[in-house]
Amino acid sequence: MGVTLSRNFGSDNVTPACAPVMAAINAANAGSAGSYGADEFTERLTAVAREVFETDLAIYPVATGTAANSLALSQLAPAFGGIYCHESAHIVTDECGAPEFFTGGAKLLGLPSPDGKIRPAQLEAAIAFATEMGVHHVKPAALSLTQSTEWGTVYSLEELSALTATAKKHGLPIHMDGARFANALVRLGCSPAAATWKSGIDVLSLGATKNGALCAEAVVFFDPALAENFERRRKRAGHLWSKFRYLSCQLLAYLQDGVWLDNARQANAMAARLAQGLAKIGGARPVQPVDANEIFVALPENLVSALERAGFHFYRWPLCSISDGVAIRLVTSYATTAADVDDFLRAAQQFDC
Amino acid sequence: MGVTLSRNFGSDNVTPACAPVMAAINAANAGSAGSYGADEFTERLTAVAREVFETDLAIYPVATGTAANSLALSQLAPAFGGIYCHESAHIVTDECGAPEFFTGGAKLLGLPSPDGKIRPAQLEAAIAFATEMGVHHVKPAALSLTQSTEWGTVYSLEELSALTATAKKHGLPIHMDGARFANALVRLGCSPAAATWKSGIDVLSLGATKNGALCAEAVVFFDPALAENFERRRKRAGHLWSKFRYLSCQLLAYLQDGVWLDNARQANAMAARLAQGLAKIGGARPVQPVDANEIFVALPENLVSALERAGFHFYRWPLCSISDGVAIRLVTSYATTAADVDDFLRAAQQFDC
Amino acid sequence: MGVTLSRNFGSDNVTPACAPVMAAINAANAGSAGSYGADEFTERLTAVAREVFETDLAIYPVATGTAANSLALSQLAPAFGGIYCHESAHIVTDECGAPEFFTGGAKLLGLPSPDGKIRPAQLEAAIAFATEMGVHHVKPAALSLTQSTEWGTVYSLEELSALTATAKKHGLPIHMDGARFANALVRLGCSPAAATWKSGIDVLSLGATKNGALCAEAVVFFDPALAENFERRRKRAGHLWSKFRYLSCQLLAYLQDGVWLDNARQANAMAARLAQGLAKIGGARPVQPVDANEIFVALPENLVSALERAGFHFYRWPLCSISDGVAIRLVTSYATTAADVDDFLRAAQQFDC
Amino acid sequence: MGVTLSRNFGSDNVTPACAPVMAAINAANAGSAGSYGADEFTERLTAVAREVFETDLAIYPVATGTAANSLALSQLAPAFGGIYCHESAHIVTDECGAPEFFTGGAKLLGLPSPDGKIRPAQLEAAIAFATEMGVHHVKPAALSLTQSTEWGTVYSLEELSALTATAKKHGLPIHMDGARFANALVRLGCSPAAATWKSGIDVLSLGATKNGALCAEAVVFFDPALAENFERRRKRAGHLWSKFRYLSCQLLAYLQDGVWLDNARQANAMAARLAQGLAKIGGARPVQPVDANEIFVALPENLVSALERAGFHFYRWPLCSISDGVAIRLVTSYATTAADVDDFLRAAQQFDC
Repeated sequence: MGVTLSRNFGSDNVTPACAPVMAAINAANAGSAGSYGADEFTERLTAVAREVFETDLAIYPVATGTAANSLALSQLAPAFGGIYCHESAHIVTDECGAPEFFTGGAKLLGLPSPDGKIRPAQLEAAIAFATEMGVHHVKPAALSLTQSTEWGTVYSLEELSALTATAKKHGLPIHMDGARFANALVRLGCSPAAATWKSGIDVLSLGATKNGALCAEAVVFFDPALAENFERRRKRAGHLWSKFRYLSCQLLAYLQDGVWLDNARQANAMAARLAQGLAKIGGARPVQPVDANEIFVALPENLVSALERAGFHFYRWPLCSISDGVAIRLVTSYATTAADVDDFLRAAQQFDC
Repeated sequence: MGVTLSRNFGSDNVTPACAPVMAAINAANAGSAGSYGADEFTERLTAVAREVFETDLAIYPVATGTAANSLALSQLAPAFGGIYCHESAHIVTDECGAPEFFTGGAKLLGLPSPDGKIRPAQLEAAIAFATEMGVHHVKPAALSLTQSTEWGTVYSLEELSALTATAKKHGLPIHMDGARFANALVRLGCSPAAATWKSGIDVLSLGATKNGALCAEAVVFFDPALAENFERRRKRAGHLWSKFRYLSCQLLAYLQDGVWLDNARQANAMAARLAQGLAKIGGARPVQPVDANEIFVALPENLVSALERAGFHFYRWPLCSISDGVAIRLVTSYATTAADVDDFLRAAQQFDC
Repeated sequence: MGVTLSRNFGSDNVTPACAPVMAAINAANAGSAGSYGADEFTERLTAVAREVFETDLAIYPVATGTAANSLALSQLAPAFGGIYCHESAHIVTDECGAPEFFTGGAKLLGLPSPDGKIRPAQLEAAIAFATEMGVHHVKPAALSLTQSTEWGTVYSLEELSALTATAKKHGLPIHMDGARFANALVRLGCSPAAATWKSGIDVLSLGATKNGALCAEAVVFFDPALAENFERRRKRAGHLWSKFRYLSCQLLAYLQDGVWLDNARQANAMAARLAQGLAKIGGARPVQPVDANEIFVALPENLVSALERAGFHFYRWPLCSISDGVAIRLVTSYATTAADVDDFLRAAQQFDC
Repeated sequence: MGVTLSRNFGSDNVTPACAPVMAAINAANAGSAGSYGADEFTERLTAVAREVFETDLAIYPVATGTAANSLALSQLAPAFGGIYCHESAHIVTDECGAPEFFTGGAKLLGLPSPDGKIRPAQLEAAIAFATEMGVHHVKPAALSLTQSTEWGTVYSLEELSALTATAKKHGLPIHMDGARFANALVRLGCSPAAATWKSGIDVLSLGATKNGALCAEAVVFFDPALAENFERRRKRAGHLWSKFRYLSCQLLAYLQDGVWLDNARQANAMAARLAQGLAKIGGARPVQPVDANEIFVALPENLVSALERAGFHFYRWPLCSISDGVAIRLVTSYATTAADVDDFLRAAQQFDC
């Protein structure tokens, strides 16, 4: 509690909803609307999403990223299945076993790598092992990758295609955890279609909350046939709102008029500005490339402590393998301003000696 | 879609959020706030709820009633347990198996009665059967009752106490599905404490969405010790919002300044006005007593059809056992006006001949 | 403990294994055999079962009926599905929630009737209700019927076909709980094929333990395509034995040389003899027709008590709706002799006055 | 199929049941016995187990090791819990997700080490990470270790005590997967009590099948209070046999008269003889210490191929990290003779050049 927005580099989820989203909620609050998704906002959302992604699709709004990821995975993997993912994936470490709960006990098979990206050869080897084990092992069932990754990196379209091709060769459908999909998208500079289904993605958890919504994410199936019975899964998980218009209207506002892209561009630009500034700090060494809106950087302990005391909020990140100093994670958001970044950098320079 | 609010008697969930709730959401949308419930709104909500219920308690906001009910039950019943409830309970018929999902397969043991209320002797007999069956049967684990019931009736405090005493005699904790708790409360005319923990309720699903919130319910444990690890259950079900302030602020606005009671009084008064008017319709026969904001009434088919054609929205209710005519359910809400009711009655009288 | 076999009418599961089954187990205990079903006994079992049922099929031995039923149902119904069955079905009352566990929370929807048989119209009405409820209700997923039923009655082939046709009209696969299938089969006097897949059964839980095996049941899929991934379900439920030969050899001995039919004929004949004798007891009134090896009969309390004191073992059956006296269940088995029955009848006549 | 017992070094689960176990099964097959464990064999088993382990305890026979492990873990860990274990534990790689199924989705948190043993510091670090993550991570719930380990090594009593003390410091109960417990026990040369509860073990999966039983394992709770409701878990998983005597009598025969220890001593002695012989083979390099009845050894590819062609059965073990050659696993059993070992060694020497 009590974090000043301008000094927050802890997470993009402590921001308020952006103006277009709040305006949409207020506008939706008039008269009656059909419940459980039988409303005009939800209908329009599907149309807009199809336009944005340039394909037929089925889109299912939910209120949280954990719900989006877990519902998506439960649609792809049976209870006796294995889901290949990065060992540091959010679904592995940060969702208190939600994927296991929703799938009825499927196993997340974590693959290691330093930058959060899964390599095709890793996936290939893991599937080969499972195949040799046969009935004693969980059945290879799905691939889940995160874009942008948990380490702030972004798969290139070539990397994406190579990885999804490996999965598809073995019949595995592919899920993308896109909690920060917009940040990856503006980095790639390609169309939403190119970044997803044209690169082999079957199901996308489309994040919006971190990038300006109040509480809205969506599960997007690029092949509607894959979504059979998905509505029942959402209902029985308690994720079908009765006053559904309030979920759909957020996503409508988010996807229309480029709001999502503008927000993500601002967040990424601020991360780049911050990274450039840090490069001039003597004791700072980058831990990961800065592709989107997250920065992993190693700093001397006394510098980190000084920044904390000065009221800047960010997380120490002990999982980084660094030889000395302290690794921290800095996150920028649509609400971060150039002044916020410059204040941080000024303080860092001042404390660095 | 396309139901006019003034002609809606289908459900209280097609209404917009009431003004105080929307004002609270807009007010909360400023600056940063700690995520996942580490915010001042959530802190104040607990304090307000303790004051309202006159006891120490733990309160956990969630966005839907299905989530509130299922999470509550999963806290009370093990996977090998049986949950006694009414055979027409919402948790049995309307949640697509959510309680079974959240509990890991516990069994809902439905007890029949014409008015939606469970009798102590029914519960006693069912527990006796389970006890005799021993390890072959699910273990009696919890009682879940709905207040006001699915048939629009309200347990008196005496009925409540007798039923919960029977459950407690056998060591069963008691859950109350209070999707329309405020409507029952103003009917009983007693304190929230008297209607819940003083009558033996251990856990309450406190509904707000149907009575004026945008998307807010809460699981209330009157003994905080019963809530151990509940936060992990909520998290792994995808019901822990990151921008949590927007859930808490709704409930704050709802419970403060008597908003919830005013809204419920209006809904109940409109139901009473409607019931009184229907009593003067020749072909109408009441199917259930009207204790809260739901009316079950049998009408001639031609009258029902005429009302439907005139644009009034309500549900035919085939589960009612009536000898002739058509049973329908009419629901009023905080947004129903006397003019809305009178329009309906005028039309009914006109079509009745 | 301490029940004399000759005075046991409590259950067919207190009997030892019959001679051919024990001989097969001893014969199998020589040298090594491939583990997990890669043995010659298992291979031969499939061949024999195909011959017996006159069709291609997949057969999966397990050690208990609860495992057979629950694994079969988990193959047919998704976690968000509903399984129609009789309200007194063994899967509902006697398996401690096993079907819910194995399916991940599917709901058993019990249909009532006095004789344990489900009527097509009941099933039709229940599916219609679910369909109208849509996403709020579990999805109609499967039909499970018991043959012979929990009330000792046997569906005729006509009854079976009418019921399975109703299920199939709505796309539901059909499971038969055949814990006492052999008893029904010899009653019907038809081929195993006629009693199962030719009457619309898709999956059979083939009981053997009650009818002479040591610990052997089997899940039989009459369409092997329905069994996809079933082996993984069995494995992850801990029901894939490493020394698998000892399960398969029991079923081989059971199905070969008419052992199962001989055993069932003896059990049924003894039940008929017992029922005929009871008809001559003044105070006895039949509660159900005696079609197989279970007898439900109402007797005066003093007669029941006297039989119990005399060391006869059977269960009082309070679920029977009878106006006076005590309903009891008597079960005969392959091990019951004419002398055993006559002893019981002699005692009953003696105590009846 | 078709493996000659004398040339089998693939697994100890392709052996027949040993003579005392088969004699016990035949002896039990007389007259009636109470079903579901209400028989004298089961009663005596508890008494014998208490004597063998020198403590009060609750023992629950089941037919498979997967069932024993998974049922035990489901008793210790809630669905939102994490179970610490070795990354190569049988419960992780060989049970097709059974622990996840039985626990309702708990997460197995695999810790790496080259010899199959978990180090206290690893456990400490993993718990510290989980604690810092709080509600977003699964809750540390239990420790599961394997004795003898999946790499054929045996924890010393000192190692055991140090590891279990770390777990207990954080309130975690400890499960031991004792699929080959007897082999570890005779290696340690201590009492069963010293090897289990005196070293901090709370629940033991006591294996018997690999060491001479037909199909028998047991879950042993050294504190019976920990076993509350365990019988319902076993029932709903389909692991409560009706003719229960046939499970209990196997374990009785196994634990009495030192049968289990004699069998394990033979297996271990044969492994030692084999390891000593292999040490004289030029191209052979040990991969792990040989503490019990499993040998991991690296051999030249041409030698491995020649042994395979000669009809010896064993598994190639690609998980071993070796620089060249092929790692294989050789398993001995109670049924392995000195002649079997010498034949293998003679062949190996002959092919080694």
